[in-house]
Amino acid sequence: MNNAQLQKVLTNMHEMGLKQLLITSPMSIKYITGRLIGPGERLLALLVTDEGDCTLVANSLFAVGSMDGARLIEYDDTDDTAKLLSSLLKGGVLGVDKELKSRFLLPLIDLRLDIRPVLGSLCVDRARMIKTGEELSLMAESSRLNDLALSETIKTLRAGQSEEDVAGIYRHKALSLGSPGESFPSLICRGPNCAEPHHDTSKDLLQSGDSVILDVGLLHGGYCSDMTRTVFLGKPTDEMRKVYALVKAANEAGRAAVKPGMALKDVDRAARSVIESAGYGKYFIHRTGHNIGLEVHEYPDVSQSSGEVCQPGMVFSIEPGIYLPGRFGVRIEDLVAVTPEGGKTLNHLDRELTIL
Amino acid sequence: MNNAQLQKVLTNMHEMGLKQLLITSPMSIKYITGRLIGPGERLLALLVTDEGDCTLVANSLFAVGSMDGARLIEYDDTDDTAKLLSSLLKGGVLGVDKELKSRFLLPLIDLRLDIRPVLGSLCVDRARMIKTGEELSLMAESSRLNDLALSETIKTLRAGQSEEDVAGIYRHKALSLGSPGESFPSLICRGPNCAEPHHDTSKDLLQSGDSVILDVGLLHGGYCSDMTRTVFLGKPTDEMRKVYALVKAANEAGRAAVKPGMALKDVDRAARSVIESAGYGKYFIHRTGHNIGLEVHEYPDVSQSSGEVCQPGMVFSIEPGIYLPGRFGVRIEDLVAVTPEGGKTLNHLDRELTIL
Repeated sequence: MNNAQLQKVLTNMHEMGLKQLLITSPMSIKYITGRLIGPGERLLALLVTDEGDCTLVANSLFAVGSMDGARLIEYDDTDDTAKLLSSLLKGGVLGVDKELKSRFLLPLIDLRLDIRPVLGSLCVDRARMIKTGEELSLMAESSRLNDLALSETIKTLRAGQSEEDVAGIYRHKALSLGSPGESFPSLICRGPNCAEPHHDTSKDLLQSGDSVILDVGLLHGGYCSDMTRTVFLGKPTDEMRKVYALVKAANEAGRAAVKPGMALKDVDRAARSVIESAGYGKYFIHRTGHNIGLEVHEYPDVSQSSGEVCQPGMVFSIEPGIYLPGRFGVRIEDLVAVTPEGGKTLNHLDRELTIL
Repeated sequence: MNNAQLQKVLTNMHEMGLKQLLITSPMSIKYITGRLIGPGERLLALLVTDEGDCTLVANSLFAVGSMDGARLIEYDDTDDTAKLLSSLLKGGVLGVDKELKSRFLLPLIDLRLDIRPVLGSLCVDRARMIKTGEELSLMAESSRLNDLALSETIKTLRAGQSEEDVAGIYRHKALSLGSPGESFPSLICRGPNCAEPHHDTSKDLLQSGDSVILDVGLLHGGYCSDMTRTVFLGKPTDEMRKVYALVKAANEAGRAAVKPGMALKDVDRAARSVIESAGYGKYFIHRTGHNIGLEVHEYPDVSQSSGEVCQPGMVFSIEPGIYLPGRFGVRIEDLVAVTPEGGKTLNHLDRELTIL
């Protein structure tokens, strides 16, 4: 058990007035217990009471063995997990995390009409949001390795490679730097594919004249990195240059706005207004960024709908983009850690216009 | 839209008396619409009414574009998705699939006290359970390629390789056969690691005298394969031989029991009793198998808790195992398709005791 992190969760439970919290996100369970267990479709749940009692419910196949500081309840493939969970709960309000699936929640509600489930995810999400010094060191190193792996990958780019080839090269570089692998499937986009922020890396071939978006991250010590660079194969058009300069300025404006106390929606605004002022606002079709840590996308977003303010220990992405349907797209993404003095950018790979 | 598959879902909705069903599993949405969309933490939902009206709710980033036969409602990162979903629903019972997360369900319940959510997953799960001829062809080919990739991998096994090395070799073989990748992270276990069915493939080195479990699968045409072989590096002990023969007999007994009308729990019983009769029952610590298709683990299990019977078009695994803690383990897994005449095994890789 990681007692410091459990204490942060308990403090949040007290603030929210929650007496019991059911956590099923494997990464949140790892955050509190230090153990990463992949349950697949089976139930893995950590029940935390406001007095700090922890009970881990796990299939015996997970071979948890034992866990200091937590009671371990194991079940088998033929056991009724709803009945098991139900026997552990007090009546009244039950906080559950946002990942709890209906397959577990609805049978539990059927058995226990005296329980009222509410979203209690913020107790863990807001604890995970503020990284410790140790976590920040791992995240800085994860981004340093990501800079290296992407820098090496960009050097090998040439027309005729497929997007998948490029993803394979990045993977190889990441592994050779000692990372266990990517923190998410690399997004490599060429030409018009760059205009779809959710394009899946494909067998499409890079061509001269393309913009190429490389959105990549790796794992180090359990922590994620995530960055994006856009480069050009052959001479970019004037509009490509203009769009690139705008996105670069928006990225800089977003990073420069970061300081303790600044609302995340104002960080979003700082980046977005650069693009809007130039008339490209409707082509910047997503949030400016997201927090990151054990998972690539953590709470909260850097967007107009966020109610959080920058606090030392937060790490989030600043990733403005402009996407011109059917033509090309540009995104530049860096991770920024909030320090008492302001934002500290974790990525150091060049952002100047790169023509290959 | 895949109308035949939608009709199967509608038939199940009528049988369950459900007027509306909210589906969030990306694979179930693919099953009905033909489109695979990976939403990450964002909302992707398909609402189906008993009259066959379909509404897809998707973030505009997913770039769905349009969808024949379904109404498409797109939202942006700053939209309130609970309010959006709520506006689409009728009062009364709402079927939801088992994957729906609390982050979406609980805010919806708060907005619509007139809605009563129930698990309606079986409407889709039981449709997906019976494969069409086309699906069966893809699954047979997926298993044929898996046989090939694993056969080639086993030929390269030697002491001194790490479990991760072996997983890398399998991956390479799968990709070179034209598969886009594994259907799940390969489970490679050496020696005592074989006794943990959920052991994560590690940097541990294969040694002479080891049992080696290789549990692997790949994707072909969107469909999963999944098989396990256990081989020995150097001469196995007498107990290893005995355990291997038992597991092989249990695998054969399970496969032989498959025929239309046979209860899945009796298939489980057929495999399990071979192991129990020999006194090793307490070392066979999991279900005998699981259905498989678009995903590796689909409904239902082949276990004592299953209420389903074999029906033509089902495809499931038969994977008995014996796990001796701290010492070694053996598992032999094949996929079996139920045909009107009985079970048809999709894997053809040798099951004889293999000593390398």
